[in-house]
Amino acid sequence: MTSQADCNSMTNRSIAKSDAAVQLLMPQGQLPVVGVDIGGTKVSVVVADAQGIRGKVTEPTVKQGTHHALALQVIRLIHQSCQLAGVSENEVVRVGVSACGPFVLRDGAVELAGPNICGGLSKQQNRTNDWTTAPLEALLKAEFRCVRVENDGVAALEAERRWGVLQGVDHCAYVTWSTGIGVGLCVDGRVLRGKNGNAGHAGHTYVATDDQALCGCGLVGDLESLVSGSAMARRFVAQGYPDATALFAAVRSGDGAAALIVDQLCDLMGRALFNLVVTLDLQRISLGGSVFLHNSAQILPRLNGFLVGKLPALTRGVELVPAGLGAAVGDCAALALVIG
Amino acid sequence: MTSQADCNSMTNRSIAKSDAAVQLLMPQGQLPVVGVDIGGTKVSVVVADAQGIRGKVTEPTVKQGTHHALALQVIRLIHQSCQLAGVSENEVVRVGVSACGPFVLRDGAVELAGPNICGGLSKQQNRTNDWTTAPLEALLKAEFRCVRVENDGVAALEAERRWGVLQGVDHCAYVTWSTGIGVGLCVDGRVLRGKNGNAGHAGHTYVATDDQALCGCGLVGDLESLVSGSAMARRFVAQGYPDATALFAAVRSGDGAAALIVDQLCDLMGRALFNLVVTLDLQRISLGGSVFLHNSAQILPRLNGFLVGKLPALTRGVELVPAGLGAAVGDCAALALVIG
Repeated sequence: MTSQADCNSMTNRSIAKSDAAVQLLMPQGQLPVVGVDIGGTKVSVVVADAQGIRGKVTEPTVKQGTHHALALQVIRLIHQSCQLAGVSENEVVRVGVSACGPFVLRDGAVELAGPNICGGLSKQQNRTNDWTTAPLEALLKAEFRCVRVENDGVAALEAERRWGVLQGVDHCAYVTWSTGIGVGLCVDGRVLRGKNGNAGHAGHTYVATDDQALCGCGLVGDLESLVSGSAMARRFVAQGYPDATALFAAVRSGDGAAALIVDQLCDLMGRALFNLVVTLDLQRISLGGSVFLHNSAQILPRLNGFLVGKLPALTRGVELVPAGLGAAVGDCAALALVIG
Repeated sequence: MTSQADCNSMTNRSIAKSDAAVQLLMPQGQLPVVGVDIGGTKVSVVVADAQGIRGKVTEPTVKQGTHHALALQVIRLIHQSCQLAGVSENEVVRVGVSACGPFVLRDGAVELAGPNICGGLSKQQNRTNDWTTAPLEALLKAEFRCVRVENDGVAALEAERRWGVLQGVDHCAYVTWSTGIGVGLCVDGRVLRGKNGNAGHAGHTYVATDDQALCGCGLVGDLESLVSGSAMARRFVAQGYPDATALFAAVRSGDGAAALIVDQLCDLMGRALFNLVVTLDLQRISLGGSVFLHNSAQILPRLNGFLVGKLPALTRGVELVPAGLGAAVGDCAALALVIG
């Protein structure tokens, strides 16, 4: 039984009760749970019970109206998802939410405070709202008895620990290399959260000196500003590579200049992974995200090459491993928060 | 009651039973405990019981003979310390050891694997031994029933959480800026250890690009190679500042060039502290070590200036605070591991 196969079958929304993956996902007799995935561009909702994952609905993330608009969209999509799945809303007790951060807490309840959703925090001209936060947890808790909101890095880590390549690994991280860089962390067998649930914002760490690359968060020269998918689409246009897809395609076709750029990008990501390993004494890192998963043959050897031999007492035996759930991490992440 | 005053009185080795600090340190009736502090240059041992901390003995760290020599030195110094303190060795059940890392585990027992002790790991020419590890925990456990070995960053963190400025703070770090850079970390109320007890080696993270500064660990351009006390003594000689003391004295006397160097050093340390805050969502960092403590008036405003306004959801309200135990952290760290 491989985890990859498990999650593929889960995300195929199999409804066969005999499917082993479904049995793994949901203990028989457990009430249906809802998984909500909130990103800067879209919101997805699914329902899962012993019959599998189904009722998936997706919409562009609402960014207009009052700052309650996003939470109201989520509640509406949960209703739609339940209808589509043929599940009574009254049966849904537990809602897991995987959301892009950072979070702030108001009276102990999570509100989103990222510039990709809250225009009031963005430095861009064409912002569609002036929100400084988007309340979320308090409004959901008024509708559902058990709501667990975690940042998407933490949620994906939980999914990889439950079904993927981090099962049984006490000191580990999940790192997504995608449009942005997200991280979830686990040390001594415990997932790290921090004062506002923002542990894992290592995409915004400084790993090298660069005073030109502006990140969406407002920092200059952090990891995400240098290596994320959106950074690639901005930084290498002048060299003839309009985005990550074009850049890696060029590497595969033998373009030496593109290979040099990818060497440098992997050195930067390698620094970030090394920093996590030595700061937290990790033993395994699961790597996901579209940039990594589509180009792992180019990326993984370079990352391993960066780590090898550096501070051996810390790095010896450390494993960099493609995410066991592959591209399905997103669908599984929110559910992993509420399946008990 | 200030923690600073508490530890000052502790380290004055008061033996007055009425002393509040001593009461705080050791519950009445607790058997004597031993604290061992192992650094690259010296080993110190103290005994503590309800009468206070006493029997301090210190020797240069043994680096010759078989690789068991260091553990045998520690055992011998414990005997000496007990004699000096007038404590029967048979009464000593618990031994706390705060040791410079990194550690490796052999059959679950800590061995030291740092190049400052193990010549076999050093790249220097004049090495005094060819050890690749110095066994420690296994030999101590053959002599004492309860032995707890932690890296010195973790031990100092425990002391600051018990008696210093990190009391009651669930998401925090202790950072020592001294000859080297040491870190101890606590998230969600739990001290982080990692796969070999090496969590906190953030002194060896990459925070900027520099391909000239060689660290004792063999890395080029990590934080410690750029800002540690030993790095300062190496990097700024040509500019007329032979060590950290001279550099900061020049700043205090109005030397603009020295102030510019210190600005740059504090930007690098600021990057490292920022990285810890956003990776772990910390709320307070206690700062110690000789470089920081002797020059906090120059350093602290610069570090705060670096953090302010950067990724506010993560850094708002974060406090950088001088270590409550001041220079006494070293004496208290090992004891904090075994006083229960």
